Amino acid sequence: MGHGAGGSQMEELISRFRSVLKSDYLDQGLDSALLPPVAGALAFTTDSFVVKPLFFPGGDIGRLAVCGTVNDLSVVGARPLFLSSALILEEGFPLEDLDRVLASMAEAAREAGVQVVTGDTKVVEKGRGDGIYITTAGVGALREGLDLSGAAIREGDILLVSGSLGDHAMTILSLRESLGFASSLRSDCAPLNGLVAALIDSGACPVFMRDLTRGGLAAALCELADLRRLSLEIDEEALPLRDEVRSMGELLGIDALTMANEGKILVVVPRDKAESALAALREQPLGREARAIGRVALVAGAAAGAADGAAGVRMRTVSGGVRRVTRPYAEKLPRIC
Amino acid sequence: MGHGAGGSQMEELISRFRSVLKSDYLDQGLDSALLPPVAGALAFTTDSFVVKPLFFPGGDIGRLAVCGTVNDLSVVGARPLFLSSALILEEGFPLEDLDRVLASMAEAAREAGVQVVTGDTKVVEKGRGDGIYITTAGVGALREGLDLSGAAIREGDILLVSGSLGDHAMTILSLRESLGFASSLRSDCAPLNGLVAALIDSGACPVFMRDLTRGGLAAALCELADLRRLSLEIDEEALPLRDEVRSMGELLGIDALTMANEGKILVVVPRDKAESALAALREQPLGREARAIGRVALVAGAAAGAADGAAGVRMRTVSGGVRRVTRPYAEKLPRIC
Repeated sequence: MGHGAGGSQMEELISRFRSVLKSDYLDQGLDSALLPPVAGALAFTTDSFVVKPLFFPGGDIGRLAVCGTVNDLSVVGARPLFLSSALILEEGFPLEDLDRVLASMAEAAREAGVQVVTGDTKVVEKGRGDGIYITTAGVGALREGLDLSGAAIREGDILLVSGSLGDHAMTILSLRESLGFASSLRSDCAPLNGLVAALIDSGACPVFMRDLTRGGLAAALCELADLRRLSLEIDEEALPLRDEVRSMGELLGIDALTMANEGKILVVVPRDKAESALAALREQPLGREARAIGRVALVAGAAAGAADGAAGVRMRTVSGGVRRVTRPYAEKLPRIC
Repeated sequence: MGHGAGGSQMEELISRFRSVLKSDYLDQGLDSALLPPVAGALAFTTDSFVVKPLFFPGGDIGRLAVCGTVNDLSVVGARPLFLSSALILEEGFPLEDLDRVLASMAEAAREAGVQVVTGDTKVVEKGRGDGIYITTAGVGALREGLDLSGAAIREGDILLVSGSLGDHAMTILSLRESLGFASSLRSDCAPLNGLVAALIDSGACPVFMRDLTRGGLAAALCELADLRRLSLEIDEEALPLRDEVRSMGELLGIDALTMANEGKILVVVPRDKAESALAALREQPLGREARAIGRVALVAGAAAGAADGAAGVRMRTVSGGVRRVTRPYAEKLPRIC
């Protein structure tokens, strides 16, 4: 408990962070990091991470906490610059686990080219936490002249995903339930700012992006349809799913559309840019399995008098039917991130 | 648990936030808030709040979470602008308590003139949290031409505190231990950006500020002495302490110097500005009890060949002795904020 109480024991902990998460800003010793000016508009986001278990194939809570915030900034068209990191430790959490998590944060930050510039640590009693919870926030610089709000979406635009769906969710679930499934499964947890930058720089003109975390593709599509009053259509056949993920999902009755990812994005591009966008994504290591999965069938907001019922998401199933895609009311996989 | 799992049940929770924490940015429906450009250098900070109990005279965890981050930005000379808020809820946390906390965050944000622009919610199982933990991060705009890093501290500079010490810590302790003490005690939890702005605008030229949270005045002074290799002297007699706080501290053996505050700052000003700085502070409702408590006796870094041992904090006691002030190793009051 002493590590969280503001004394010199806490100072030891802070020194540990500084030595791992090397940043000049962390060494300022002030109550806030003093950062250089950022040209243009800002993006700002935050997420708490409570994933269970803390360590998993492909990552851990530290990597997740950095990537999640980097990705939330990336998909709105921002270059991620600065991260904060606030830890809530449960009394008795092993210091060697903490070191592993910090090292992993540092590595993910290096991969993404961002700096963790400010932080905080609190300690709670045994039974009031679960090892470690991490909350990151991030500041990014918005690229000029880019509108990824979805306001520019038009009928006929194409829906892309950057790779296979559900790897993160099924990795966590398999570990948690000791299912002994699919030893080849790994979380896809990765920083996507490089992939997004490559896509934008290719001139593919994306008009919307979202990372496919909690609630998976279903939540992302339904939110977009609501936000912009769109009718979206996807093809089940086109969804990129690893065989292990597909069979695990079928066996457990979990819809692949709702499975969380930590390194995959949905991209909407104009139809005439779809091929070049796919090519740009596939050139990147994190987008090699990118696919077109559907289209914008109707922009209800634009059609005068269009009934609200027109907005929504439909999936053409493998068997030839059409199924309405809805957001899961309460997902079956809590603490997935 | 469903409220944290990314489904439509979570969407209900988010709507609740939006309706309370009114901000156009919260309504963008994107993965990050898109903010206007900020002129000049930025300040960025974060803190997690795990205070127990959640509600106390003078505030609650929501007010604390907003004020703590506003104050961390204020003391480095930044105008606080935008806050993020990430909640970790324990399964079963009453929604009416959540509403109270959110309303309190909204009120504190209004008081401080900041906007909560982005947020996140996770839910953990019963016994893996403690009602609610809140992590805020904040972005502020640094005032130009102001150096509050302590680099400009000179011998003879005066140490001020903005008001009575220990009110927050003793309020929490009294509640937690059901001591039934001092019914008049209230936490001092307040946003200090107005006070700090008034001080700076008065032309009092502060060269360092810090808010006196975990570890209290002792931690703030010792950190400053370490950071800038200073010898600092304070007068016990000059410390502003309410009678209840003084007697509770004596009875419980808690050094008032180490007690946490949530609405008090340490200010270092040049000697010839001390009177005007005090006057400027006292004109503000939150600085009415401001006092000079000591001075910078030596700037070891500047004195060629000065022994490192010269840096540190000494207190002239009421009884006429001199006592070395050290940081508490591990404070007696965990979860004070």
